[in-house]
Amino acid sequence: MLLPNHGANPSILLKHLGKEQTDSVIDFSENTNPFGPPAFIKDLNSDQLVSSIKAYPDPNVTDLTERLAFTNKVPKETILVGNGAAELIYLIAQLFENKHVAIVEPAFSEYREACEAFGCDITSIVLPPPWKLDVEKVTSTFSKIEALFICSPNNPTGVQYTEKEIIFLLEEAEKAGVYIILDEAFYDFSEEGVGLARLQRNFSRFIILRSLTKMFAIAGIRLGYLIADKNIIKKVSLYQPTWSVNGIAQHIGLKLLDERSFVTNTVENIHIERRRMTQLLQELDYIVSDSSVNFYLLGEETRIDLMPLFMFLVDKGIIARHTYNFSGLNGAYLRFAVKDRLSNNHLLAALSEWRKR
Amino acid sequence: MLLPNHGANPSILLKHLGKEQTDSVIDFSENTNPFGPPAFIKDLNSDQLVSSIKAYPDPNVTDLTERLAFTNKVPKETILVGNGAAELIYLIAQLFENKHVAIVEPAFSEYREACEAFGCDITSIVLPPPWKLDVEKVTSTFSKIEALFICSPNNPTGVQYTEKEIIFLLEEAEKAGVYIILDEAFYDFSEEGVGLARLQRNFSRFIILRSLTKMFAIAGIRLGYLIADKNIIKKVSLYQPTWSVNGIAQHIGLKLLDERSFVTNTVENIHIERRRMTQLLQELDYIVSDSSVNFYLLGEETRIDLMPLFMFLVDKGIIARHTYNFSGLNGAYLRFAVKDRLSNNHLLAALSEWRKR
Repeated sequence: MLLPNHGANPSILLKHLGKEQTDSVIDFSENTNPFGPPAFIKDLNSDQLVSSIKAYPDPNVTDLTERLAFTNKVPKETILVGNGAAELIYLIAQLFENKHVAIVEPAFSEYREACEAFGCDITSIVLPPPWKLDVEKVTSTFSKIEALFICSPNNPTGVQYTEKEIIFLLEEAEKAGVYIILDEAFYDFSEEGVGLARLQRNFSRFIILRSLTKMFAIAGIRLGYLIADKNIIKKVSLYQPTWSVNGIAQHIGLKLLDERSFVTNTVENIHIERRRMTQLLQELDYIVSDSSVNFYLLGEETRIDLMPLFMFLVDKGIIARHTYNFSGLNGAYLRFAVKDRLSNNHLLAALSEWRKR
Repeated sequence: MLLPNHGANPSILLKHLGKEQTDSVIDFSENTNPFGPPAFIKDLNSDQLVSSIKAYPDPNVTDLTERLAFTNKVPKETILVGNGAAELIYLIAQLFENKHVAIVEPAFSEYREACEAFGCDITSIVLPPPWKLDVEKVTSTFSKIEALFICSPNNPTGVQYTEKEIIFLLEEAEKAGVYIILDEAFYDFSEEGVGLARLQRNFSRFIILRSLTKMFAIAGIRLGYLIADKNIIKKVSLYQPTWSVNGIAQHIGLKLLDERSFVTNTVENIHIERRRMTQLLQELDYIVSDSSVNFYLLGEETRIDLMPLFMFLVDKGIIARHTYNFSGLNGAYLRFAVKDRLSNNHLLAALSEWRKR
């Protein structure tokens, strides 16, 4: 069965399956903040919104770029704000048009999609369960590639690679002349929540990708940024369409960076719930990935295609993220968001029932 | 003096000139609807807005694409919605990477910027005042180019080329295997307001570019679309980042297409004011372009650099659009938006005073 390639659009999925969407459907396929956006989003002054809708956005995204530089303690010339991380992935892929790149998989499907669009030759470095990083396997590709895409904390497994592992890759990559694109879209969901921005200055080929849409649940307005050497930023900017970052994203983006306690509370709640779910699901003999963020992979010991479970859950109003388009997973796992306790318990009950059939 | 390349950001311009922005500044450099967005934008339900901010946008822009196809009476496979017309210009330029293209100038600076980013060899076909189309001059380039960028009604002159002229170009282009990109960003401001979408089916290499941000004054949220052969759309879509069109743009876009009387009223008011201004400015011995839309070029018989006039107006709180980055104009003209009567009269008084010095 061909399912839509992306999660977080339950109505499209249900339409595809010929089912009605009701209010009671719980979307576990999305991986943005389960508690929704910060409160100020609901109270946005309509005058300010109208003015952000009406006026041309600042084509240079001046204020937000400066603010992100300050927050990350990096020079502003090393920051590029984009129309969501997806735009930035396409802009980077363009740098490696028709070149050889590698992707550590399973991974967010956009790296492959973008690299294919630009005619890259793609080597897939597939990590087997439990999806820990195999640095030898990765560096063995360095002699033949120009760039490596790697995501940590990883989407879809939730596994976070260690700083030591990433530094080892960066050092080897620098020697081999390989660019490393580290997608940190979920770094702020992990308990340390620091990311590796401070290492950027030491590695001229180190490109860090960030997203503001996951933590702040603002996927609809698109907002992400790059941290990279200023020469890379200059080159990538050339390909970026003018006014790419819309006015509302620029307006809201500035306010998001003040929301520190929102982030702390989110991380705390998610960790409590993820640990609880992991333990209970393991007691039910499910395989659960060693996630450090707001989603996890679930599988069965038999590692068979989980479509029957997927459909069983759909009938109970639970939407999981299928894994057909993740290399190395191929439908044998489902990805679930960590949500509030009530929703998680609902999922738990369904998964328990599935076990007892 | 180096001025910012784009208009419609008076605060950036004034900062650049070391001047303060006050509330009394009138921005004649923007070329979106001077009467602002339709009323419903101010009354947007905050719940709907929050839901458009929070949820991932439909990556296929299904509803808006279908609606635009219906409105333009073309198949939906011939439509691609983009993150503003600027994104679509970059996506098209990518099709002609490292190829030879021509631009009918003066024209919107984004064609050149995008084509340069993708290494195109660019031939500039400069039309002299009064900026009427010289079809012989244009077709004489067809033997050596792959694509032609042309804007009608033209930005920055406001001159609309005739349907007969465009059809002649399309027929010659089809014979020569040349793609024609017709930018109709301002077609709905002209009194006929029909555009040439209905001709698309007859010419496989005919690409029409549209914008919803000009008429509806929603430049902040970015919304444009292409009408082209379905094979071109398929190819261009490959390069378009996923979720490029944000949720608010998709949400508002659907409602905009119902705003027919808003469009009619806008066109009527603008035409009355433009005709009045043209006549009065000509009486003051200014050269005024034969515009059919919501802006016009103004020059003096001597055709000297108008920086002194530009600065004279800034001191009176009037921001004009300079023309330094428009080939063929080079600062000897200023572009003014047609605004409401009060603002127009304010401009008229200043220009009259300039004449009498």
